[in-house]
Amino acid sequence: MRTQVCIIGGGPSGLLLSQLLHRKGIDSVVLERKTRDYVLGRIRAGVLERGFVELMREAGVSQRMDAEGYVHDGTLIAYDDRTFRVDFAKLAQASVLVYGQTEVTRDLYDAREAAGGKIVFNVEGVSIHGADSDAPYVEYTVAGTGERIEADYVVGCDGFHGVSRQSIPASVRREYEKVYPFGWLGILSETPPVDHELIYANSSRGFALCSMRNANLSRYYIQCPLSDSPESWSDAAFWDELKRRIPEETAAKLITGPSIEKSIAPLRSFVSEPMRWGRLFLCGDAAHIVPPTGAKGLNTAASDIHYLYHAMVQFYRDGEVEGLDRYSEKALARVWKAERFSWWMSNLLHQYPEAGAFDQKMQRAELEFLETSEAAQRVMAENYVGLPY
Amino acid sequence: MRTQVCIIGGGPSGLLLSQLLHRKGIDSVVLERKTRDYVLGRIRAGVLERGFVELMREAGVSQRMDAEGYVHDGTLIAYDDRTFRVDFAKLAQASVLVYGQTEVTRDLYDAREAAGGKIVFNVEGVSIHGADSDAPYVEYTVAGTGERIEADYVVGCDGFHGVSRQSIPASVRREYEKVYPFGWLGILSETPPVDHELIYANSSRGFALCSMRNANLSRYYIQCPLSDSPESWSDAAFWDELKRRIPEETAAKLITGPSIEKSIAPLRSFVSEPMRWGRLFLCGDAAHIVPPTGAKGLNTAASDIHYLYHAMVQFYRDGEVEGLDRYSEKALARVWKAERFSWWMSNLLHQYPEAGAFDQKMQRAELEFLETSEAAQRVMAENYVGLPY
Repeated sequence: MRTQVCIIGGGPSGLLLSQLLHRKGIDSVVLERKTRDYVLGRIRAGVLERGFVELMREAGVSQRMDAEGYVHDGTLIAYDDRTFRVDFAKLAQASVLVYGQTEVTRDLYDAREAAGGKIVFNVEGVSIHGADSDAPYVEYTVAGTGERIEADYVVGCDGFHGVSRQSIPASVRREYEKVYPFGWLGILSETPPVDHELIYANSSRGFALCSMRNANLSRYYIQCPLSDSPESWSDAAFWDELKRRIPEETAAKLITGPSIEKSIAPLRSFVSEPMRWGRLFLCGDAAHIVPPTGAKGLNTAASDIHYLYHAMVQFYRDGEVEGLDRYSEKALARVWKAERFSWWMSNLLHQYPEAGAFDQKMQRAELEFLETSEAAQRVMAENYVGLPY
Repeated sequence: MRTQVCIIGGGPSGLLLSQLLHRKGIDSVVLERKTRDYVLGRIRAGVLERGFVELMREAGVSQRMDAEGYVHDGTLIAYDDRTFRVDFAKLAQASVLVYGQTEVTRDLYDAREAAGGKIVFNVEGVSIHGADSDAPYVEYTVAGTGERIEADYVVGCDGFHGVSRQSIPASVRREYEKVYPFGWLGILSETPPVDHELIYANSSRGFALCSMRNANLSRYYIQCPLSDSPESWSDAAFWDELKRRIPEETAAKLITGPSIEKSIAPLRSFVSEPMRWGRLFLCGDAAHIVPPTGAKGLNTAASDIHYLYHAMVQFYRDGEVEGLDRYSEKALARVWKAERFSWWMSNLLHQYPEAGAFDQKMQRAELEFLETSEAAQRVMAENYVGLPY
């Protein structure tokens, strides 16, 4: 088989790129290790930056998102028993859209299928060849049969554990990593959210986040030791602990109910440089991970897609390779800013087991400064809604 | 002897408080361990916040400062071979004044002497008694003779190593500290400054600061290991190292000359809470230390003096103790913000021996973000010129 762009990974990044390229007449094939249902079963982020929203519109898949997404003009930050609001609309003249990654992915699958897009599911043993030559190809098997796709370019949208990053020789890769000494225990429940905006809470007992998907679907998280397991947390224990970490007034309004999903996610900051090697390009989690505080994971993947999409259009339309040549540099410049913001916001809100008394006071001073300084709130707002591409 | 306010420490904080109180008809005595010449021989900070400048004016000692001080409307930040400017005037509608602490102290001594203010030099063995009673007194000896001063209030302006903080029982004190794993090697030279504004430089070889006192007096610093001694650094070695840490263009303009002072200062963040115990009040370094990055030391002492001065005037004029009762709380709220800023600016600019590759990238991302975000520059500007009292 031959295509112009072979995309490894059928999550939102790969599908979005495929759909965007399709609309510019550029042919691609998407290879996905799992099934569509499996991919749609993953509960992930739900806060979309303006840039992501614009890409969905450009891809022609924004109809349901625009109708059903919740515009958030600000967010709430709680500490001790106080809550203050950072007003995105006022401070950054922008907002974010709450619309689950699951829904984004579903819309993209529907659009790709309606357009006859080539998505191969259940691929196994993917390997990338000749990425540093003019004739790269990808080999894989499906149901025991070996296949080969020749392409102009290969794009790795296959996540942190995918094969794409590993296909760049270790000698040219430089990896940066920070592992946080705690995880997020998250539950999904069919209850009305406690607030129509997100509440990020710093408590002496640990971080908590009150988040939402829609008017009857809530997502709550609490910081927990990495040694905990979801099974060790009953729903009642989760709700009790959550209530102790948010202001009393908020806790009094909280409507609890049975969890329909419960899981623990570790927190990690990770970047692999470069994001391009020959004709292989990395996007999203394949190249970088952020801790979920601040919701930059999916959005930073979208930022990579933005740069790569425009670079590919420039190449296929004008024969100009400047965008492709500068992809890694441009994508990484924005990635590092998102890494910085996610790291800062994680530092602001979590309890760190190793933090000394002075460190704790610095965290407290940062919260008080953020509460009282419009300039500091503006810095946060500009980052939260997404820095310009 | 009896006075209304007994001030321990004849540095700029103690003198400024004494002078301010004098102008409101409140009597004080200042006790100083050293001589006037010794105090004036100490080379210290030289950047005054607007609030400090206003206090000097209120104290009636601003004539020479207003005539000879250098207004700085911004500062320069260098990294790699790049330099960018943070514009205080534009972003914070304020500026700072470069006027050496030595000159501030000299002006205050002159004013106190002209007004017949009581300053006792060469005091030894100072001890504070009855601070938690209604009749505190201070004992000390001068030239072998024991003396005793009874006062309404005792104010400790005697620095980090002074007796005042130690006079608060350990059981009611809480101390917070961070020691930085490096020092600042500073020299003073009778050369024109390399720039009319300060240059804070982050270099892979360590931090450097190009500072000035006047048109022919420059102050330069470089980060150095704490194990170094000033004697191990020849002037030539200092200038060579400084030039390697600042942008080439700046290094080319640097005029070097013999040092007239050379010393190494450690960097420390320290706060002791509370800042009041009974009738004893702590001001400045007696209660808190900041690393010198951002020039908050003297300025934060002045902020304490501001709160205490107004509280004492309120008490002696109106018999109202609310200001005195809230002194510790109000002073500390601003102290912690200055601590946060000094800690942030130190983190931004120094090389930390223990920093991993990810930490270094976060520092780099912070610099790039500061260079490109007006909101981030505004946060820095507002802190640098001094948060409102």
